[in-house]
Amino acid sequence: MPDVVVSPATTQEVVAVVKTCSKMQVPMIPYGGATSIEGHLLAPLGGCSIDFSRMNAVKRLSKEDHDVTVQPGLGYLELNEMLKEHGMWFPLDPGPGASLGGMCSCSCSGSTAVRYGTMKDNVLSMTVVLADGQEVKTSSRAKKSSAGYDLTRLFVGSEGTLGIITEVTLKIHKIPAYSNSVRVSFDSIDAAAKTVQDTLAAGIQIGRAELLDDTMVQVLNKANNTRHREATTLLFELSGESPGSVADAQRAVLALAKKRGGGKPHVATNPEECRELWRQRKEALWSLMGLYPELECMTTDVCVPVSRLSDLIGQSKRELDASRLPAPIVAHAGDGNFHALIMFDRTNPADVAEADRLSSFMVHKALEMEGTCTGEHGVGVGKIKYLPEEHGDGAMHTMRVIKRGLDPGGLMNPGKVLAHRRDPQTGRLVLCA
Amino acid sequence: MPDVVVSPATTQEVVAVVKTCSKMQVPMIPYGGATSIEGHLLAPLGGCSIDFSRMNAVKRLSKEDHDVTVQPGLGYLELNEMLKEHGMWFPLDPGPGASLGGMCSCSCSGSTAVRYGTMKDNVLSMTVVLADGQEVKTSSRAKKSSAGYDLTRLFVGSEGTLGIITEVTLKIHKIPAYSNSVRVSFDSIDAAAKTVQDTLAAGIQIGRAELLDDTMVQVLNKANNTRHREATTLLFELSGESPGSVADAQRAVLALAKKRGGGKPHVATNPEECRELWRQRKEALWSLMGLYPELECMTTDVCVPVSRLSDLIGQSKRELDASRLPAPIVAHAGDGNFHALIMFDRTNPADVAEADRLSSFMVHKALEMEGTCTGEHGVGVGKIKYLPEEHGDGAMHTMRVIKRGLDPGGLMNPGKVLAHRRDPQTGRLVLCA
Ligand SMILES: Cc1cc2nc3c(=O)[nH]c(=O)nc-3n(C[C@H](O)[C@H](O)[C@H](O)COP(=O)(O)OP(=O)(O)OC[C@H]3O[C@@H](n4cnc5c(N)ncnc54)[C@H](O)[C@@H]3O)c2cc1C
Ligand SMILES: Cc1cc2nc3c(=O)[nH]c(=O)nc-3n(C[C@H](O)[C@H](O)[C@H](O)COP(=O)(O)OP(=O)(O)OC[C@H]3O[C@@H](n4cnc5c(N)ncnc54)[C@H](O)[C@@H]3O)c2cc1C
Repeated sequence: MPDVVVSPATTQEVVAVVKTCSKMQVPMIPYGGATSIEGHLLAPLGGCSIDFSRMNAVKRLSKEDHDVTVQPGLGYLELNEMLKEHGMWFPLDPGPGASLGGMCSCSCSGSTAVRYGTMKDNVLSMTVVLADGQEVKTSSRAKKSSAGYDLTRLFVGSEGTLGIITEVTLKIHKIPAYSNSVRVSFDSIDAAAKTVQDTLAAGIQIGRAELLDDTMVQVLNKANNTRHREATTLLFELSGESPGSVADAQRAVLALAKKRGGGKPHVATNPEECRELWRQRKEALWSLMGLYPELECMTTDVCVPVSRLSDLIGQSKRELDASRLPAPIVAHAGDGNFHALIMFDRTNPADVAEADRLSSFMVHKALEMEGTCTGEHGVGVGKIKYLPEEHGDGAMHTMRVIKRGLDPGGLMNPGKVLAHRRDPQTGRLVLCA
Repeated sequence: MPDVVVSPATTQEVVAVVKTCSKMQVPMIPYGGATSIEGHLLAPLGGCSIDFSRMNAVKRLSKEDHDVTVQPGLGYLELNEMLKEHGMWFPLDPGPGASLGGMCSCSCSGSTAVRYGTMKDNVLSMTVVLADGQEVKTSSRAKKSSAGYDLTRLFVGSEGTLGIITEVTLKIHKIPAYSNSVRVSFDSIDAAAKTVQDTLAAGIQIGRAELLDDTMVQVLNKANNTRHREATTLLFELSGESPGSVADAQRAVLALAKKRGGGKPHVATNPEECRELWRQRKEALWSLMGLYPELECMTTDVCVPVSRLSDLIGQSKRELDASRLPAPIVAHAGDGNFHALIMFDRTNPADVAEADRLSSFMVHKALEMEGTCTGEHGVGVGKIKYLPEEHGDGAMHTMRVIKRGLDPGGLMNPGKVLAHRRDPQTGRLVLCA
């Protein structure tokens, strides 16, 4: 727990907080929507939690340029409420409740990344306050720039460890005029994953391509009182600016699914039904937690080149099915990214050890397959131990050089992203070499 | 001029060169295709030019994952020759002759960025050798990752000043199955620029959207012996996976052009004719230099939010038309980026001053409009003077912290990107505060 919580209303107030904290050597932990899942918000040295709930305004909107400037405490759901009336949206969809500052910090993505990319592709510029209180404007509002080092992408994904975001300029997108959703089940993970791969290879424009394993369909059936076939299932969204382009894409996807043995597809064309389908998918975690109210969830987040996804999920599923812990799978299959939602009892050491074993099995397999330990959730404290294996000495050294240069006092969200040890003399956290 | 040129064949040889240079305090200047245009390759302190012409192999290709790993000396034209037989391409198209290492370093883009993005969006991972000889693998081969600071995007655009790229993994794309090109002329810059804006706002998928001013059409007519109307002209490419989607997009674009007073359009559907149209566009600079063999060209590269492009080109064109120097305009209009190609006589101080005046007029206007001094060519030495105005103190400070941390000896492409002064005692270049 932090020692104190402050709720600034302006960049200037953030600067004042940061200067005071720096002077008094108080750790600072920015706090957005609190939906992050790797211990990002923990305060191992106590310190000051900087809560952004008051900084939730939309500062400007340009329909012409398809961009918007917001304060970091604004939620993406609230932003989309506002954009809807202009026919626009910000498509990235992490946990409901997430704030745009937290989303920048974790470099999140979600089900639409296959079409729109991640935060790295959708942030034009930010204002960031450094540990010494200096304000940094990371970029202009131009769509592209080669004017020096890319500070925007350096701070996106830095999880509050390099600076505090006080303003964000985002690309926004037109809501597609036409959109269908397709649901199709398969006899194997392999057939489903290969269908997604075929779709990408064919250059078909898809809005989403999500995979549920049989266990997850079971969970969703129970939670939503539906009776879908309890087998590996793909959910596609196909969208575009003309009915013809959507129909072409849909036909092409269904033909590819059929080739891989896909069952009778269900096509949703009315907006209501599409929304409901994606709501159920988005709330998968909560459906699961509803079934096991006494357990907690450890969510894995590996991501591999798409061609390896089928193999990785296949191997993982053999381990998961053999385990006594319930652990359904959802995948952003078009990105090669999947989550196993491992349910365990934190008070039972055997459960904790088993959840850890499963998670670390998947990470090591993913790294063998040229993947990453985290496709979108970030490092926090949970993934620190895997970074050296993933990145190697040179990259870890480079990250430490950057951290030391920008936060010499180690006060910005201490103990996250990079490995630290506690100095026995001062009690402070020091970067490991 | 550098003192020595080395041509390594492997990453290991680059490491050996770098270690030797670091030990002996010799500046290192990586050398790719030499098409950069801001003095990127100058050797103000002499030193060692590292020529990548021998490191031009394709190391691996994955059609399934749409990615390829290459050595940095490979040209993008050569890469595309190889990819063609697989139905794939790497769409970014800077100066013919450019190498993929140089393209990473400059964060280049070109006419297809409106569809495929810039190098920042298309590099998955790189191997980089740091000043001390350490090798850095910047990322995995996964499509997305939140595993720590984004080193890939830090080195993309760093112009050889932070490290030397020895291997690059790139996203590649399917060559669209269907593709048309459209040429349409307008009575004003404003009508043409607004047409592009309307097209983007409508969410129409375009492959390219380039603008030529009347002077540039004149130049191209002379060089290619054509008789196009000498007025502001838009060139669109519309491409997709079905004839229907291309036809829909084309219809929509032509309707928007007509609304803005566009003339009778010319539509090219056969591949030969399309290729010829884009070849003429790509070789605009050389056509111009052919007409003025005794002059040199200063190319500007400002980029602004798309809504400001028409205003900026309009104001710029008034200055350019009033000047005695020939200066036609080409624009990557879909990105808000344009180049004035200012022809001048380097031996005539009045010419140099006038070219400088025009260039700096455009930069200052672009910065007033929330744009950047360089959309794609990079900083080199030519744009250093504009960076503080564009970025402000905080960002300049952050860039210097990174440069000092990763290149404490100041040996990596010295004097580029950031302002330096010469130390009168040692003769070396030192970062300005
Ligand atoms: C049900 C559920 C589903 C999810 N689905 C997805 C998904 O599909 N894709 C995905 O990517 N993620 C997903 N997530 C994870 C989570 O939603 C994302 O990581 C999200 O980006 C976190 O945003 P937040 O505002 O909640 O951040 P917080 O949890 O408040 O903070 C996250 C990190 O950002 C830092 N931070 C917050 N604000 C700032 C600021 N202003 N300046 C600097 N640093 C700041 C914090 O210090 C912390 O390190 C899911 C989570 C849940 C619970
Ligand atoms: C006719 C013409 C048209 C052009 N059109 C465009 C355009 O449309 N869009 C666009 O973006 N640009 C354009 N350019 C500019 C130019 O082509 C690009 O900047 C290109 O990216 C430079 O690549 P190069 O291999 O020629 O780099 P070089 O000129 O060899 O080097 C450029 C920089 O990269 C560094 N570098 C080279 N190799 C490495 C390496 N292996 N590791 C680290 N650093 C390295 C060099 O030190 C230097 O700082 C054009 C240029 C010309 C002449």
